[in-house]
Amino acid sequence: MKALRYHGTQDVRIDEIPQPELRPGTVKIKLAWNGICGSDLHLFFEGPIPPMPGPGQVHPLTHEGLPVVFGHEFSGTVVEVGTGVDGLAVGDNVAVEPMIVDDSCEACKQGEYNCCAQMGFIGISGGGGGLGEYIVVESRWAHPVGDIPLDQAAMIEPLSVSYHAVKYAGVKQGDTVLIGGAGPIGLFAAAVASAFGATVIISELSAARRQKALDTGVADHVLDPAYDDAVAKVMELTGGKGVDVAIDAAGVQAVLDTLCKALKVRGTLQLVALYGSAPVYDINTILFKELRIQGSIGYAHDHAPAIKLVQEGKVNLAPLITGKIDARDIVAKGYEELRDHADRQVKILVHL
Amino acid sequence: MKALRYHGTQDVRIDEIPQPELRPGTVKIKLAWNGICGSDLHLFFEGPIPPMPGPGQVHPLTHEGLPVVFGHEFSGTVVEVGTGVDGLAVGDNVAVEPMIVDDSCEACKQGEYNCCAQMGFIGISGGGGGLGEYIVVESRWAHPVGDIPLDQAAMIEPLSVSYHAVKYAGVKQGDTVLIGGAGPIGLFAAAVASAFGATVIISELSAARRQKALDTGVADHVLDPAYDDAVAKVMELTGGKGVDVAIDAAGVQAVLDTLCKALKVRGTLQLVALYGSAPVYDINTILFKELRIQGSIGYAHDHAPAIKLVQEGKVNLAPLITGKIDARDIVAKGYEELRDHADRQVKILVHL
Repeated sequence: MKALRYHGTQDVRIDEIPQPELRPGTVKIKLAWNGICGSDLHLFFEGPIPPMPGPGQVHPLTHEGLPVVFGHEFSGTVVEVGTGVDGLAVGDNVAVEPMIVDDSCEACKQGEYNCCAQMGFIGISGGGGGLGEYIVVESRWAHPVGDIPLDQAAMIEPLSVSYHAVKYAGVKQGDTVLIGGAGPIGLFAAAVASAFGATVIISELSAARRQKALDTGVADHVLDPAYDDAVAKVMELTGGKGVDVAIDAAGVQAVLDTLCKALKVRGTLQLVALYGSAPVYDINTILFKELRIQGSIGYAHDHAPAIKLVQEGKVNLAPLITGKIDARDIVAKGYEELRDHADRQVKILVHL
Repeated sequence: MKALRYHGTQDVRIDEIPQPELRPGTVKIKLAWNGICGSDLHLFFEGPIPPMPGPGQVHPLTHEGLPVVFGHEFSGTVVEVGTGVDGLAVGDNVAVEPMIVDDSCEACKQGEYNCCAQMGFIGISGGGGGLGEYIVVESRWAHPVGDIPLDQAAMIEPLSVSYHAVKYAGVKQGDTVLIGGAGPIGLFAAAVASAFGATVIISELSAARRQKALDTGVADHVLDPAYDDAVAKVMELTGGKGVDVAIDAAGVQAVLDTLCKALKVRGTLQLVALYGSAPVYDINTILFKELRIQGSIGYAHDHAPAIKLVQEGKVNLAPLITGKIDARDIVAKGYEELRDHADRQVKILVHL
């Protein structure tokens, strides 16, 4: 079959490789759409970092090295069902949770497999990926999406990242939530927080992304931190109290500081963005307002409830698709487009 | 009456001042013992910082400037009861919660008066202090201690700081708790965590303080981070899982990093120490273990349950008293002793 594989820095190729083989407990999926993630851009332009194996290395769980089939946000249709699999049938459309875990580790034993000590991702660490014709995955990672179109189903993975963070933050009906950054994860988080009944404020430098947040209906208010005093505006919108929850979907020191200042006493700052360099604690604000700061990484048991939000019409993924391209164009129309024109894009989907 | 007043940097004097007058809703207390707090040392040696008014300033709530009666960890006996006061009688021994708050602020309206926007402390910001012969306080701040001896009752205030932090951290029966730093707040936190049924590990550089933690029975295990690999030892003690809760009672970057590494997945890091300079986030550990980091400041509604722990014999304060001195000796036998020989002291009590 054909598959787009990651060979190294700025080197992806469509190769001819053997089809993966069905094993007991797995399903074989004919792949439909694969979304491009920010981490794909980092890997493509800057080279491999864990959990992708470096040159000459293998991932400790897959024992595979480069090249690996690329892409971890994907959907498809079940075409074969292995022995011992319940709840999945040929013809089911599914979104794949691209996990590779060590079930014997302490985190996995607690059910928190997103914190697995040796965690890998399908499409990064080996085990196939979303940019092939077929993939075989353990049935536990294939989540039926029912009537959700397959293009939208490819976005269940990033939606689950945001769902996990918003759920861990404890967002509830009536809360006010401030989100720093309106990239895909920020917009998805806004959509989930809105679905949970919260009033959502987004602070974002890009005018196009602020407009997208308003057009898609995921934000009730948007702020431009370059011109607005974001903290003062938040205090005005919350009657001087501050927000219940702030979500860091930016990974930038200045945003982090603003979020701490805009939180109410005992408010929760949920970290979901990754950082290029370690930020400094706004320690006095944390102490004197007794803030709670929580890390969030990936997802665990979040795909099914995220799918349900879409099925119930509480989250509308369609307007967040801003491009659909062929895998042959992935560098120019995918990676370079997202690097150079991030503010006019949310999610670009790729088919092979 | 006589009172020891703070006039400025390294300038405390025993002055003759008028007795405070009873008002409706207040009680007059004959003072017994006053403990020396780490913040008293900072104020004495380094000069006033908020919430103490600087030279020529007044505190926004008390409208008082220097000199102020010093001391905020104190006990005494009720000698007069104002009109409208319920639940307190002449002869009651009390521990005073030394709060000065603005009840109209958002935090106070939420009941979290420890996060009051304009917070002050009796004994720092005006309103009298523990190092006088008498004080008059609003009755809500005078907590009856029953049979607890008055020397121990002067330690209810710092015990409440630790109680507040341990409670907010959610420490429960069967947890393992790692405490960084065995100064008074760390030892009190260890005592409370033990009272809550947790196994307590203390990491502390000073051999004398480690010994004190063992002698007083507040710690089950002690570590010397200069010689032990603290994280490895904690993993050994917890079967590779990590601790449920870590409490930062040190305020030092290296301790903070150790605590993050020693926590289990989704464990809680409770900050209670103050910092001289802002620490750096161990961001990847926070994200990839989904840690929860919480600030804690002072106390709110914690004195009564802290008193109960002592009354029930679950916390033994007696061995934590390491000195009893006269106010005339407070500089040499109090402030200088604690500055120069912190490791042989826990709590020094002062009487006037």
